[in-house]
Amino acid sequence: MIIVLDKSATPEQIEQITSKLEQGGYQAHPIFGVEKTVIGAVGVPEEEKPGYVEQFEALPFVERVITILAPYKLAAKAYRPQGSVVRVGDRVEIGGDRVCIMAGPCTVETYEQTMSTARAVKEAGAHMLRGGAYKPSTSPYSFQGLGVDGLKILAEARAETGLPVVTEVMDPRNVELVCQYADMLQIGTRNMQNYDLLREVGNTRHPVLLKRGMWARIDEWLMAAEYIMKGGNENVVLCERGIRTFETATRNTLDLSAVAHVKQESHLPVVVDPSQGTGKWVLVLPMSRAAIAAGADGLIIEVHPRPEQAWKDGAQSVTFENFGQLMREVRAIAEVMGKAL
Amino acid sequence: MIIVLDKSATPEQIEQITSKLEQGGYQAHPIFGVEKTVIGAVGVPEEEKPGYVEQFEALPFVERVITILAPYKLAAKAYRPQGSVVRVGDRVEIGGDRVCIMAGPCTVETYEQTMSTARAVKEAGAHMLRGGAYKPSTSPYSFQGLGVDGLKILAEARAETGLPVVTEVMDPRNVELVCQYADMLQIGTRNMQNYDLLREVGNTRHPVLLKRGMWARIDEWLMAAEYIMKGGNENVVLCERGIRTFETATRNTLDLSAVAHVKQESHLPVVVDPSQGTGKWVLVLPMSRAAIAAGADGLIIEVHPRPEQAWKDGAQSVTFENFGQLMREVRAIAEVMGKAL
Amino acid sequence: MIIVLDKSATPEQIEQITSKLEQGGYQAHPIFGVEKTVIGAVGVPEEEKPGYVEQFEALPFVERVITILAPYKLAAKAYRPQGSVVRVGDRVEIGGDRVCIMAGPCTVETYEQTMSTARAVKEAGAHMLRGGAYKPSTSPYSFQGLGVDGLKILAEARAETGLPVVTEVMDPRNVELVCQYADMLQIGTRNMQNYDLLREVGNTRHPVLLKRGMWARIDEWLMAAEYIMKGGNENVVLCERGIRTFETATRNTLDLSAVAHVKQESHLPVVVDPSQGTGKWVLVLPMSRAAIAAGADGLIIEVHPRPEQAWKDGAQSVTFENFGQLMREVRAIAEVMGKAL
Amino acid sequence: MIIVLDKSATPEQIEQITSKLEQGGYQAHPIFGVEKTVIGAVGVPEEEKPGYVEQFEALPFVERVITILAPYKLAAKAYRPQGSVVRVGDRVEIGGDRVCIMAGPCTVETYEQTMSTARAVKEAGAHMLRGGAYKPSTSPYSFQGLGVDGLKILAEARAETGLPVVTEVMDPRNVELVCQYADMLQIGTRNMQNYDLLREVGNTRHPVLLKRGMWARIDEWLMAAEYIMKGGNENVVLCERGIRTFETATRNTLDLSAVAHVKQESHLPVVVDPSQGTGKWVLVLPMSRAAIAAGADGLIIEVHPRPEQAWKDGAQSVTFENFGQLMREVRAIAEVMGKAL
Repeated sequence: MIIVLDKSATPEQIEQITSKLEQGGYQAHPIFGVEKTVIGAVGVPEEEKPGYVEQFEALPFVERVITILAPYKLAAKAYRPQGSVVRVGDRVEIGGDRVCIMAGPCTVETYEQTMSTARAVKEAGAHMLRGGAYKPSTSPYSFQGLGVDGLKILAEARAETGLPVVTEVMDPRNVELVCQYADMLQIGTRNMQNYDLLREVGNTRHPVLLKRGMWARIDEWLMAAEYIMKGGNENVVLCERGIRTFETATRNTLDLSAVAHVKQESHLPVVVDPSQGTGKWVLVLPMSRAAIAAGADGLIIEVHPRPEQAWKDGAQSVTFENFGQLMREVRAIAEVMGKAL
Repeated sequence: MIIVLDKSATPEQIEQITSKLEQGGYQAHPIFGVEKTVIGAVGVPEEEKPGYVEQFEALPFVERVITILAPYKLAAKAYRPQGSVVRVGDRVEIGGDRVCIMAGPCTVETYEQTMSTARAVKEAGAHMLRGGAYKPSTSPYSFQGLGVDGLKILAEARAETGLPVVTEVMDPRNVELVCQYADMLQIGTRNMQNYDLLREVGNTRHPVLLKRGMWARIDEWLMAAEYIMKGGNENVVLCERGIRTFETATRNTLDLSAVAHVKQESHLPVVVDPSQGTGKWVLVLPMSRAAIAAGADGLIIEVHPRPEQAWKDGAQSVTFENFGQLMREVRAIAEVMGKAL
Repeated sequence: MIIVLDKSATPEQIEQITSKLEQGGYQAHPIFGVEKTVIGAVGVPEEEKPGYVEQFEALPFVERVITILAPYKLAAKAYRPQGSVVRVGDRVEIGGDRVCIMAGPCTVETYEQTMSTARAVKEAGAHMLRGGAYKPSTSPYSFQGLGVDGLKILAEARAETGLPVVTEVMDPRNVELVCQYADMLQIGTRNMQNYDLLREVGNTRHPVLLKRGMWARIDEWLMAAEYIMKGGNENVVLCERGIRTFETATRNTLDLSAVAHVKQESHLPVVVDPSQGTGKWVLVLPMSRAAIAAGADGLIIEVHPRPEQAWKDGAQSVTFENFGQLMREVRAIAEVMGKAL
Repeated sequence: MIIVLDKSATPEQIEQITSKLEQGGYQAHPIFGVEKTVIGAVGVPEEEKPGYVEQFEALPFVERVITILAPYKLAAKAYRPQGSVVRVGDRVEIGGDRVCIMAGPCTVETYEQTMSTARAVKEAGAHMLRGGAYKPSTSPYSFQGLGVDGLKILAEARAETGLPVVTEVMDPRNVELVCQYADMLQIGTRNMQNYDLLREVGNTRHPVLLKRGMWARIDEWLMAAEYIMKGGNENVVLCERGIRTFETATRNTLDLSAVAHVKQESHLPVVVDPSQGTGKWVLVLPMSRAAIAAGADGLIIEVHPRPEQAWKDGAQSVTFENFGQLMREVRAIAEVMGKAL
């Protein structure tokens, strides 16, 4: 921690800081510059008191406080420098030498729609089935998902195709139920900082797909992962799905630099959702290629037998035919990256 | 709904659109321009099928779909053109002729800290006590609040001072419990689209302070209010608390235009949180004045007996003395606006 | 300057940093923490070598470099702690005890339109006349302004009403010409980092209204002022006019916290443009009040005799009648702030 | 154009709109919905009056005006559906079957630095040399470039290596001069809406590299291209270089979806600048691969013999060795895309 003092800080005030630091278990190293005084605080006390850093900022003669250490520990690269591989079901691994493709409908609508999509994506080479049973909808008048009936349909699709299932859980009260049906729990973008939900999935040992909040800086995203891991569940896969910016041509701005940056900062696998990221089916294919080229460990793609009849997000769903094309192109990029599909 | 077709759309495709619209209960009005064909859809079918609008966007020959009607109904100005007044406890009204000041600690730390703050803000003229018992923290290693013990302290402070209490609820499982202690439920910025939580508070009849998501457009904020109102709880007060932008000098960018715009669009009262909005105690006073001048119905202010010892958000908490000054200045602005404090 | 080293940095690498710092005229103060080594650099060399700070960031074992000193000097509060008053024409002062209102058409269209507007705003109490002769337009097919003919009309309006004129200059080749007709030069938002233009107006002694770039952080805005002041022209007035965010209900997001923050950081006067800031005439009045309450030294308002016939920005122009109302309400707020109008 | 009226609009007001439209050369098609009236305007008048669209928005009973036609014509896909190929110098083509790599120093510092870099990037397979002689710097105290001496060094480097040169021009007064030395003119991000400069380069026939404004929506970027093309210079290449968002881990947020989207909307070639886009040399390589996979026609890369001694932007410059690696990896991705390097 570096504390920058106002030009006007008196020796008494500097002393007030250093003694507060020493009481907090830090060693204080003041550096007296020409214009400012800066105090470096060394030492990582076992148990930091709440609000400690902000307390210094509240002092009127403190200009700013700069923290040096990354606030995440379990999610940090140093925790597992070789990188993590998260296992889903019996056969799927995310973060290793194979790119993992999750595909399926935005929303589970009917048995037939889900089953036909599951078969189509399996045939095209997908490794996991995605599909929403509990759907976050901006409008209370929109379809909210089939709930447990949707979970059952997904489980049937898994039984037939062998594809492990990833599906969103929104309510901490449903975590146990969703665990019974799904192989991987998805935390949606709106719930990235729903801490009670994060704690609840942190108490399970189910793999978790943690979508980035559309407002979240990368460090905050990794802190959300830290919440889950602190509960003992280290099976976290990050998912970049676009952030909110001023650009309106795309639904969100897919931040592929974040994929490359996370690979520097964390050992956790990262996948990309170009469907949510762009909101336009015609952009899904190029951004899928780009994601893999940027180093992503996988993709999650919305596929629908007839997007023009989808109950949700038809505009960003690809057809079976387009998905087949996507798989061929992504495979070629993956090979350049030294990975299999 | 206006559907804009690609230049290349054929008569058959136009026919496909119009017949789909008519099956959906709409009347279709095609307008053939020089470069584009545009189809106006009239009629608001009682029960719109899920994903209906997006289905049109999924058609490759559709360029875009523009919705005309605001998606919110209960939150819309037209629902109650004269404006709503939300009553909290026996005596406080928000949205009427009096500006409502909610003040208190960011976080309930101890009995003494809370009680002394409650007394001080009461004496300075505040109408409600704020204070966090359940705290959303970016870090799992930070203080998460005293929980039910915090609620009890708040209730004691109310008993002594008579100030009704507003406090955050984060977990749908805690809504009933928080209702027992608090007079008003706060939905925090991170939970603005936590739909299970919104539904749960919508099932109570407790007044709700709905903070704007730091990523949320104004229409999405009003849709969150719609979720609560649809459950039958119309006692919603909106709270502008800053949005996330590229500016780093302030913690968020407080969007006071949103206050003025919401007054055009909705009948719901709006208050402003300049503490969260700016993150700096020195900016709280000027932004409090500006908020009232923009037409806000109230303020929510973080106050701490000794901000440099606060467990959370000390940097944005004002002292008792500064709060007194704030009350005096806000009172003068309120009078210009024709309101009492 | 604080240099944070990677955990893996070797003693040789630390030595490499310290000797580079010492060659650069700094004293190096290494602090060895538990996890990181941090090197504080003290001393402000007279003539810093170009790219010096970034050179450290280019070293693979350097994690980040934090600069401590504000990069602006002439624009900083410390340069003139009592605040600056900028004089325009014979009688107008910006930054003192009077709020300064600049009003007039977005664009000079005709002699009659400009003259009638000038008379109306003068009568309502405005202190300066605004109006565009050179107009930045997103489209090359839109009206680009009357150019020198527009300047002449503005000069005639000044001759009749006595109101000093502020108008935009976009091209460094036109600075001399615009100086002949106008009392104050406006740098528009798109040109805030047009450095050749800034240098050119810095070579004059005309007062300058420097609008904030819609993408600019506050420190970058102050650096743009520094460019002008470095040329010897210290008559700079800052103008907050909204920044670009994800919100689409307003044309920009008017950042009134920036006004309050600039008052802490700089001695320069700050005015607010609620017309550009919101893009909607109905929001101009409340945001004008809020701006003054936040501490702004003035306003710049678009007024048009018949907004529904304006050649540009009619949607954000107020009528004469609304402007009269605005003046009355702003006057009342100014009085609360201890200022005259 | 679609005009949406307020619920309260009277028949007289509707008539006022339709007659104004007809006077403007449009045909008006009112559609009377259950809640709103919407008026479709058909016909593209030869010469639209300035501010026409905004005039409707200024009417108090108009809720909003939606424009249907894209505002750009020469930059639109329809203008040249097969796509454009821009030729630079004798041998380089951008937009065809070959990916074009522009590489070189951020800033021309010395003859030796420029020459050694030019030789190195040529040897590694680059097609063009980049380098700044006029440098936009946030600080007036920073190095502003060598000016004409820098241009001469670039011309010497071209003479020896045969690589055509791209360099930035910032001041309309320098366009002619820069044309004498450079093969391609760069418009920097800060000047994307510097209309006098755009017009000036539009009057030349030199190819132009038009960087996206860090605040600019894609439609505004294409409108900037339209300014240049309207002058008769159709040799425009777009360059995505990152937009400004709340994320601080990267210098900007590189928007690769914009590349894919522009390929749908425009015939102009698009290249990507991952150096400016990310600000970190370690991210340049993955984002270079991703850009080509997203469909970009080329890259512009900052290369420096010793980034830790660069005068500017050392943090984002790659070494010769890293550039060689970049070329190998980009070549492999280009081949998958069916392109040569």
